[in-house]
Amino acid sequence: MAYRFTVLDELTEHFRRLPGIGSKSAQRLAFHLLNMPKEEALAFADSIRKAKESVRSCRVCQNLTEGEICPICSDPGRNRELICVVESPSDVMAIEKTGEFKGTYHVLHGAISPMNGIGPGDLKIKELLARISAGTVTELIIATNPTVEGDATAIYLSRLIRPIGVKTTRLAFGLPVGGELEYADELTLSRALENRRDL
Amino acid sequence: MAYRFTVLDELTEHFRRLPGIGSKSAQRLAFHLLNMPKEEALAFADSIRKAKESVRSCRVCQNLTEGEICPICSDPGRNRELICVVESPSDVMAIEKTGEFKGTYHVLHGAISPMNGIGPGDLKIKELLARISAGTVTELIIATNPTVEGDATAIYLSRLIRPIGVKTTRLAFGLPVGGELEYADELTLSRALENRRDL
Repeated sequence: MAYRFTVLDELTEHFRRLPGIGSKSAQRLAFHLLNMPKEEALAFADSIRKAKESVRSCRVCQNLTEGEICPICSDPGRNRELICVVESPSDVMAIEKTGEFKGTYHVLHGAISPMNGIGPGDLKIKELLARISAGTVTELIIATNPTVEGDATAIYLSRLIRPIGVKTTRLAFGLPVGGELEYADELTLSRALENRRDL
Repeated sequence: MAYRFTVLDELTEHFRRLPGIGSKSAQRLAFHLLNMPKEEALAFADSIRKAKESVRSCRVCQNLTEGEICPICSDPGRNRELICVVESPSDVMAIEKTGEFKGTYHVLHGAISPMNGIGPGDLKIKELLARISAGTVTELIIATNPTVEGDATAIYLSRLIRPIGVKTTRLAFGLPVGGELEYADELTLSRALENRRDL
């Protein structure tokens, strides 16, 4: 293209770098922003800046928060003896939406993945061990993803923590509710068979 | 959800308002931004602000530009007798990418759509007539979208402009190159038949 349009190209490029956004969508989003009311676009820019400047990790559970300690860790109604270990802050949100869990969380910020050069030292495991060593934790629910990396992390953690005498459990695998047996993949189906329960 | 997370919720909401982004993707994008290096996220925010503050409409063709007059209108090598009328700035980009068109453009910033309350008065038609009345234009290529709104706009413009004595043409309809006949919709196929050409 002969005519460069630096400001717009720059904005498009920023959108294109976001996950799941290709170059066509990036261009569309950049044009959409240009057509927005000015206040709304500037509010968007401010919101990025504000989020980046005020969000940090909770000193206790490592989840993202705006203060020193996140609202879950500072809630006296949550059970501190039960820690649910997850890979990322969005996993905390997903579990919170169920409304079923009344314990606290620990966010690892990743999973062990030798392929991507991520070892146990890159995760917030040291901070988890510090919490356990305080002696009040009775159960660790490992809620890493049902992937190769999540499995590796779960196995690593349970080997590390079982000797300390804390019970470690993992989320159940099986058929997703509302799904159809016929469309379940073989691995899910074999896990569902293996973990079958008395009726 | 019991625990609100204002800064993150705000950022997620800004993403969710963009076209084609649902609430799950919006949350993913917001988390992605939080995990980005700080400089990159702030550069993104700046780029939105800069685009919004420095981009305006070209005084001649109404395309988006950073100066008074866009690079295409100020290029002495472009044919000013030929104006290609399009709905939006991204259409200009699409035609420029072909490298086939050496005339100038006129961006309407929309199409006639009574359903959405957009009439001819909401488009940059007054500005187009002013350019034509200068007397140097010989042909107007109407390149509005092949949609109901684009068709209505094309018909409106040709009725308005033909009496002035300027030739008006429209982009050809037919089979997309590389497509397969079997998968073409009936309307496209009947237009392709209707507009068949001698070999």
